Amino acid sequence: MASFETISEQRCFGGVQGFYRMASGECGLPMRFAAYQPPQAANGPVPVLYFLAGLTCTEETFVIKAGAQRMAAELGLMLVCPDTSPRDTGIEGAADDWEFGEGAGFYVDADQPPFSRHFRMYSHVAAELPALVEESFPAAEGRAGIFGHSMGGHGALVVGLRNPKRFRSISAFAPIVAPSRVPWGMKAFPRYLGPQREAWLAYDACELVRREAVDSTILVDQGEQDQFLARQLRPELFEEACANAGQSLVLRRHAGYDHSYYFIQSFVEDHLRHHAGILHA
Amino acid sequence: MASFETISEQRCFGGVQGFYRMASGECGLPMRFAAYQPPQAANGPVPVLYFLAGLTCTEETFVIKAGAQRMAAELGLMLVCPDTSPRDTGIEGAADDWEFGEGAGFYVDADQPPFSRHFRMYSHVAAELPALVEESFPAAEGRAGIFGHSMGGHGALVVGLRNPKRFRSISAFAPIVAPSRVPWGMKAFPRYLGPQREAWLAYDACELVRREAVDSTILVDQGEQDQFLARQLRPELFEEACANAGQSLVLRRHAGYDHSYYFIQSFVEDHLRHHAGILHA
Repeated sequence: MASFETISEQRCFGGVQGFYRMASGECGLPMRFAAYQPPQAANGPVPVLYFLAGLTCTEETFVIKAGAQRMAAELGLMLVCPDTSPRDTGIEGAADDWEFGEGAGFYVDADQPPFSRHFRMYSHVAAELPALVEESFPAAEGRAGIFGHSMGGHGALVVGLRNPKRFRSISAFAPIVAPSRVPWGMKAFPRYLGPQREAWLAYDACELVRREAVDSTILVDQGEQDQFLARQLRPELFEEACANAGQSLVLRRHAGYDHSYYFIQSFVEDHLRHHAGILHA
Repeated sequence: MASFETISEQRCFGGVQGFYRMASGECGLPMRFAAYQPPQAANGPVPVLYFLAGLTCTEETFVIKAGAQRMAAELGLMLVCPDTSPRDTGIEGAADDWEFGEGAGFYVDADQPPFSRHFRMYSHVAAELPALVEESFPAAEGRAGIFGHSMGGHGALVVGLRNPKRFRSISAFAPIVAPSRVPWGMKAFPRYLGPQREAWLAYDACELVRREAVDSTILVDQGEQDQFLARQLRPELFEEACANAGQSLVLRRHAGYDHSYYFIQSFVEDHLRHHAGILHA
């Protein structure tokens, strides 16, 4: 049995909102995660939807700010939220920069010292955490989806595209779709992955969709007043890559919305319905 | 015109979530508040629902954690959230205790020095803030309601019962219903209001409902796993007071729920519907 402990559990919409801490072999440190079990989970396994959060966030952010439990309870979906990086890594300077290091793991497996010691978020969210959830929570076999926001939208696209059997549905809010070509990625990837651009492409959704298009439609929502839209997010690059690859994509641009959880909460119901439509089918 | 400035405004569910700062004559300091304007407010005045938060909270807490904007947008209600006390009062020790002082104004007008200088939250929320909202926001005349949580549930009951013409609908989550008889009130009231118990009763919902029962039904939700239930909240005292006064009350006890916003968000839709049913009538 994988080892984890309960930090807290609280009743919410007839289900249970919990926070937990697991021993992460990948990261070599304790890793926190949140799980919302809908009321239906009391009667048997339910599909699981993983949410990956953005820069500076933790496993708590989506849980507190997105208002998603209501619809998860209605649709019978479990929501699982990992942290955005290992914490208390002891690596010098790793907690000093909001765009890199702790709180900014970018969902990659770092192979550059000193980060390679702990920053293995790709394997943590793509395999280690789902294995624990499937073993220890009422998770329906073969029925998982993944979504995320900003850096976590990048993570959801990358993890989803590379693991289509494990994650059957994918969506994102304001994702970084081409990290190897925008400032956030070009700052973080060399220190996690080294200077060779080829290594970066295994974590670049625009590149991955060319190699590994998936059967299900990907849903992406983007606010047109998002302060990071033109420089860091560039959804038109993913739109073009999906068109070229024959990947089914619904990209919705929303006038007036920014990058915040006020934007996310406004459309989170649509995302849960998107995933439920695939995972309950 | 009352003086206020905009701190931020963000699109949310087709409306606008804003944070503002006003010059408060009552408190003698700048006071922050939040207002969510639903999409309907773009076309004309809408009813306003005031939410009073609990100990340690600010004008942001309900906005971030309750998930109420969705239903406010659907029902066409404006949501206004004041802070829980004046801030940066300069009164020695006023920010040191989570149960008293800054973040713990208890919605009273203090008449004891040094607190009487700034701690006039009753007049701020019952009159000053609504006057500004009616003057500067698209607020429908004569259509306001009030609700709150814990210390703010106490505030909502007190302000609502004492101002039935201004606040036509009242509800509360886990309110302190008898502050003059429970530890939180017995600690705070002497320092704000002096040692005479008679002065406290003007801010005690169980006493007020005897004097000033209102026409509309009051809705109260209470979690049965609330850690403050037996010692601080004691809803049975309000139930008894309402029965004796002929005040219509719906008190719902919910198995498994605690004192948190996971409890609040689970039932906030019912509260908005309760108020909309009265305010739209």
